[in-house]
Amino acid sequence: MRQSTRILRIETGGRGFYEFTAALADFVRGQRMSEGLLTVFCRHTSASLLIQENADPSVLQDLEAVFARLAPEGAGYAHDTEGPDDMPAHIRAALTQVQLSIPIIGGSLALGTWQGVYLFEHRRRPHRREIALHVMGE
Amino acid sequence: MRQSTRILRIETGGRGFYEFTAALADFVRGQRMSEGLLTVFCRHTSASLLIQENADPSVLQDLEAVFARLAPEGAGYAHDTEGPDDMPAHIRAALTQVQLSIPIIGGSLALGTWQGVYLFEHRRRPHRREIALHVMGE
Amino acid sequence: MRQSTRILRIETGGRGFYEFTAALADFVRGQRMSEGLLTVFCRHTSASLLIQENADPSVLQDLEAVFARLAPEGAGYAHDTEGPDDMPAHIRAALTQVQLSIPIIGGSLALGTWQGVYLFEHRRRPHRREIALHVMGE
Repeated sequence: MRQSTRILRIETGGRGFYEFTAALADFVRGQRMSEGLLTVFCRHTSASLLIQENADPSVLQDLEAVFARLAPEGAGYAHDTEGPDDMPAHIRAALTQVQLSIPIIGGSLALGTWQGVYLFEHRRRPHRREIALHVMGE
Repeated sequence: MRQSTRILRIETGGRGFYEFTAALADFVRGQRMSEGLLTVFCRHTSASLLIQENADPSVLQDLEAVFARLAPEGAGYAHDTEGPDDMPAHIRAALTQVQLSIPIIGGSLALGTWQGVYLFEHRRRPHRREIALHVMGE
Repeated sequence: MRQSTRILRIETGGRGFYEFTAALADFVRGQRMSEGLLTVFCRHTSASLLIQENADPSVLQDLEAVFARLAPEGAGYAHDTEGPDDMPAHIRAALTQVQLSIPIIGGSLALGTWQGVYLFEHRRRPHRREIALHVMGE
């Protein structure tokens, strides 16, 4: 059994969904493992991870509207010194994922047909985000 | 250290909770590992995973009501071509888990006394769902 | 590749956030692994896990207010025999994490600068909580 780690850097253009499934598949392919486990970890508290449908972009548009309702700006937060989008960012991160682990079967990630892996940027401005990857298998 | 993978198939009868803790325990028992880690991954974006109390069924009834409120049908979604329960299904999946990893200690899953592992089916109609399993340990 | 498990016990003083990042870092340091994966699993359905900002305590205060709104007490739940805070506890657990896996890189947990790992106690009264840890690496 072998393992490997890497820090993946993603530049976001502000609030929204950034698919990086292909970067994960590339990393896994380079390991030449037939079976294993990939772990994806977001090193931030104002961005997070989400696996969602990558076929119809309107799914992501609706998801954005849902999170805008669950974590509204200007709701009288105690934590407001970093801008009106900061506390909503922490709430969005709390309600989604900071980490995902995906089995590797037959040399590939065992994602379903329509599943894409997204970085969910919660801040309005562009950010550089770091994703820690860990894979083990053989 | 050894590893093993499997695809588990679950037939759902439409929206609701389907416990499959016993199938996971069987899979782990067959591995004869005293310590390790089981990863459970749902290969869908309109069904998800949840660990909840398996003692009183009214907990699941209340949870269903909560998600019906957080992800209502007919809320004017942009994504509506696959039926009124489709976008709510994606929202329910985003707010719960696509993946769970459970330590194996003393030869068994380290679940708490009242913890059951459920497939949370979000669509109204019956579906065949696939769960990818990965276990490693010795 | 080696692995190790442990049960970590945390005494809570009732509803709120209890950071235990230092206990995780100690456990990992004791393993003397340069690369690996730590998995943290909460063995309860009325407490859960959350990674959040550990710099400004007002973030946690706002998060508490958000979950009080998403999972209100006295909302006419079917499951109410264990007290008014019990069903809200299950809802809070469903919306957050039961498990987190964190890569180990360069001998340390690959947490971001501001990320702290918290036990999120959902019941009003103090409880003894058990967290199962699993680490593998070398």
